[in-house]
Amino acid sequence: MAKDKKLVEEITSMNDDFAQWYTDVIKKAELVDYSSVRGCMVIKPYGYAIWENLQKALDTRFKATGHENVYMPMFIPESLLLKEKEHVEGFAPEVAWVTHGGDEKLTERLCVRPTSETLFCEHYSNSIQSYRDLPKLYNQWCSVVRWEKTTRPFLRTLEFLWQEGHTAHATAEEAQEETIKMLNVYADVLENVLAIPVIKGRKTDKEKFAGAHATYTIESLMHDGKALQSGTSHNFGDGFAKAFDIQYTDKNNQLQYVHQTSWGVTTRLIGAIIMVHGDDSGLVLPPAVAPTQLIIIPVSQHKEGVLEKANELKDRLSAKFRVKMDDSDKMPGWKFSEYEMKGVPMRLEIGPKDIEKNQAVLVRRDNREKIFVSLDNLEETVENTLADIQNSLLEKARELRDKKTYTATTIDEFEQIINTTPGFVKGMWCGDRECEDLVKEKTGATARCMPFEQEQLSEKCMCCGKPAKSMVYWGKAY
Amino acid sequence: MAKDKKLVEEITSMNDDFAQWYTDVIKKAELVDYSSVRGCMVIKPYGYAIWENLQKALDTRFKATGHENVYMPMFIPESLLLKEKEHVEGFAPEVAWVTHGGDEKLTERLCVRPTSETLFCEHYSNSIQSYRDLPKLYNQWCSVVRWEKTTRPFLRTLEFLWQEGHTAHATAEEAQEETIKMLNVYADVLENVLAIPVIKGRKTDKEKFAGAHATYTIESLMHDGKALQSGTSHNFGDGFAKAFDIQYTDKNNQLQYVHQTSWGVTTRLIGAIIMVHGDDSGLVLPPAVAPTQLIIIPVSQHKEGVLEKANELKDRLSAKFRVKMDDSDKMPGWKFSEYEMKGVPMRLEIGPKDIEKNQAVLVRRDNREKIFVSLDNLEETVENTLADIQNSLLEKARELRDKKTYTATTIDEFEQIINTTPGFVKGMWCGDRECEDLVKEKTGATARCMPFEQEQLSEKCMCCGKPAKSMVYWGKAY
Repeated sequence: MAKDKKLVEEITSMNDDFAQWYTDVIKKAELVDYSSVRGCMVIKPYGYAIWENLQKALDTRFKATGHENVYMPMFIPESLLLKEKEHVEGFAPEVAWVTHGGDEKLTERLCVRPTSETLFCEHYSNSIQSYRDLPKLYNQWCSVVRWEKTTRPFLRTLEFLWQEGHTAHATAEEAQEETIKMLNVYADVLENVLAIPVIKGRKTDKEKFAGAHATYTIESLMHDGKALQSGTSHNFGDGFAKAFDIQYTDKNNQLQYVHQTSWGVTTRLIGAIIMVHGDDSGLVLPPAVAPTQLIIIPVSQHKEGVLEKANELKDRLSAKFRVKMDDSDKMPGWKFSEYEMKGVPMRLEIGPKDIEKNQAVLVRRDNREKIFVSLDNLEETVENTLADIQNSLLEKARELRDKKTYTATTIDEFEQIINTTPGFVKGMWCGDRECEDLVKEKTGATARCMPFEQEQLSEKCMCCGKPAKSMVYWGKAY
Repeated sequence: MAKDKKLVEEITSMNDDFAQWYTDVIKKAELVDYSSVRGCMVIKPYGYAIWENLQKALDTRFKATGHENVYMPMFIPESLLLKEKEHVEGFAPEVAWVTHGGDEKLTERLCVRPTSETLFCEHYSNSIQSYRDLPKLYNQWCSVVRWEKTTRPFLRTLEFLWQEGHTAHATAEEAQEETIKMLNVYADVLENVLAIPVIKGRKTDKEKFAGAHATYTIESLMHDGKALQSGTSHNFGDGFAKAFDIQYTDKNNQLQYVHQTSWGVTTRLIGAIIMVHGDDSGLVLPPAVAPTQLIIIPVSQHKEGVLEKANELKDRLSAKFRVKMDDSDKMPGWKFSEYEMKGVPMRLEIGPKDIEKNQAVLVRRDNREKIFVSLDNLEETVENTLADIQNSLLEKARELRDKKTYTATTIDEFEQIINTTPGFVKGMWCGDRECEDLVKEKTGATARCMPFEQEQLSEKCMCCGKPAKSMVYWGKAY
């Protein structure tokens, strides 16, 4: 087992250097690779398979709520981007510009989409005439580009994969309902598929999306106490509709502007999985999103009957679970480490002695528990154990999140907490931009959200002492 | 039924103006819309749903043959594109160049990928060391950009969606085997999912992919007698490996270059479906790829019990088929036309008299056949009829293709045929570029492929009279 130990030693410990641990894990678990394109990543098969499972979980829910997929061009003419003032101010500084096609200089620059509101608005302006055309419930899977200065795989890259929902509705109420509905879909996927607990709430005006009337968010907490904005849902009101002239004739034959929403999640959620569940042996994947849920490792595989039995079990279990079997010539201990590094939720060991006893050994990735199981009720035990792993990961993450959630009533107390015990800090806020800026300036923390579940911690703003308008989750964020 | 008639009249007849018919169909069937981005299309929900079904059919087969999905950056630095000489000569004139990120001028231009050989090669060069790392069987779903002068939705657009497989192998034999295996996967999907018969063969050197050792193709014939290159599979030999230094240590500890392939199909296949199966009433979709396989239209839907029965049938049939029910307030005749336009393979009509008789009326889109069916064996009849439609479409397309396939033994005969009865023309070829150029110059037709199934039509080249080396399928192409 010397090799086994060595493999583990090559990874930096989370507590020594969290950033280096993260980099080690994405590399050793074979999720991504670097390329000569600055700030862009190569998503390798194992990383992409996680994304495919996440896509499936989201796409099924989008379709179940009546949404349809479409595809818009990846280029936006400069004049189209300029149509909505706040939107262009938010995005123009960080877009990539195409200026030449072949040898020919373009008469108008095209930006590579940083997000597609403007294209959807143009399309809606052309295709919506009557109340019968509403609602439009569209979604798009694609990649977008934002010219970031510093990047980290999954968390912040020049190009990333995402989905962007864009909807148009007859009334403000319907748009608001849609905005919250999709936020809840995201929260459902994070909690029940990725086993990541979230705080749902509204962004402050400072933190909202460029051009939005209101932005809602799900915020999660990483193992190092930093927050991650994990999905956002925006209500645009009729702002874009007025800029792009998207009007419909209502039942009384009156012209009305539509009300719009947009909502998106990205490949950064893979970063969240890593930083919420991972440990010093590598990745830990929730079964619902794991490309391989169970790895079968034959022990003494050269002995008669072992490989046959391992193959037989693989075939049996593949009917219900995502299963692989590793019969390569590496040592079993080395294989154990490799699949722990890759976060496979459970391994099954089977050797000559197990076969004699009509049993197998299951080992959980999350808590290392060993389970001796009769081959007669293998499916049932695997199913129950995977479900238990999924629940345990969520519970464990929730406990850690709660443990790292603090309360402050003054800015001094706040500063002391955020600098010594990173995490969410709940604090009251008067609603003024000055106080929000002061928190950022003094501590580097930002308002993550005004949660739906409000608490009355005190009657005063923790910064200025004026009457508080709402409780805010503050935190340093990725 | 006045409205019904009107809707149909709005479409140009195929025989009057095939190009206009095509444009009418993609618009009326709600497959695409135009945008302000030159040469790029908005793929609407119905068009995208066809693409999703096609993706599923392909992706399942890619995975079953051991391939894994990955994602590479969308940008290629100019210096990386320049590494393989033939490749860059083929693609540089038609790429879009990014020169600025935000306000900053880039020190090196980036092109938006026209295809990703160079990125895969860079990745392989970094990640392949030993024979144990081979084969690499990667695929990517993404969009690519080629700066075309003239464009048509699906057939030729600046940006299009596609998949690109990129593989690396230890030996030339394995690479050749892979090249042909994937060509056969494409042929399988075209024939058995899209109901489009194909000619499999090899491209001439003139027509092969920039940088390839050999290009194989599947060619199909559209209703107007023009050919469509429907999928290609390239064997690169070790050309790219040498340009990008992709070497591995073999079992004897010797350094060897890998052998590579790439293969791709695009959204142009949706254009093929339209132009192979469509008619003067619109689109005709093969059941295997149709977003809706059966549309239920209640007749006299205000009468008691009709909508309830229609809903009941919808729920019953949805367990096995992709079914929709239209209970909007439009006239049934108008609905009939609408779903004919959209190419839904079959409609089910149910009204008060049908309910009395415990029956429904099925109407096939392909041949308009009416089938009265007892509700007791509805599932069975629907299943068999959908299977029959799928087969009939393939048969019908094959008959038409065969009818429009001609033979020429001299260039004069060839010219006369291709100008009066467009289609495939089989003709012998000496293998010289001059003769190939002459055919193009005189007639506009190109060598579509040298088919695997060779025939000895004559011993002489149809152009120059010198000894013939192979039979070629010639044709005018999209």
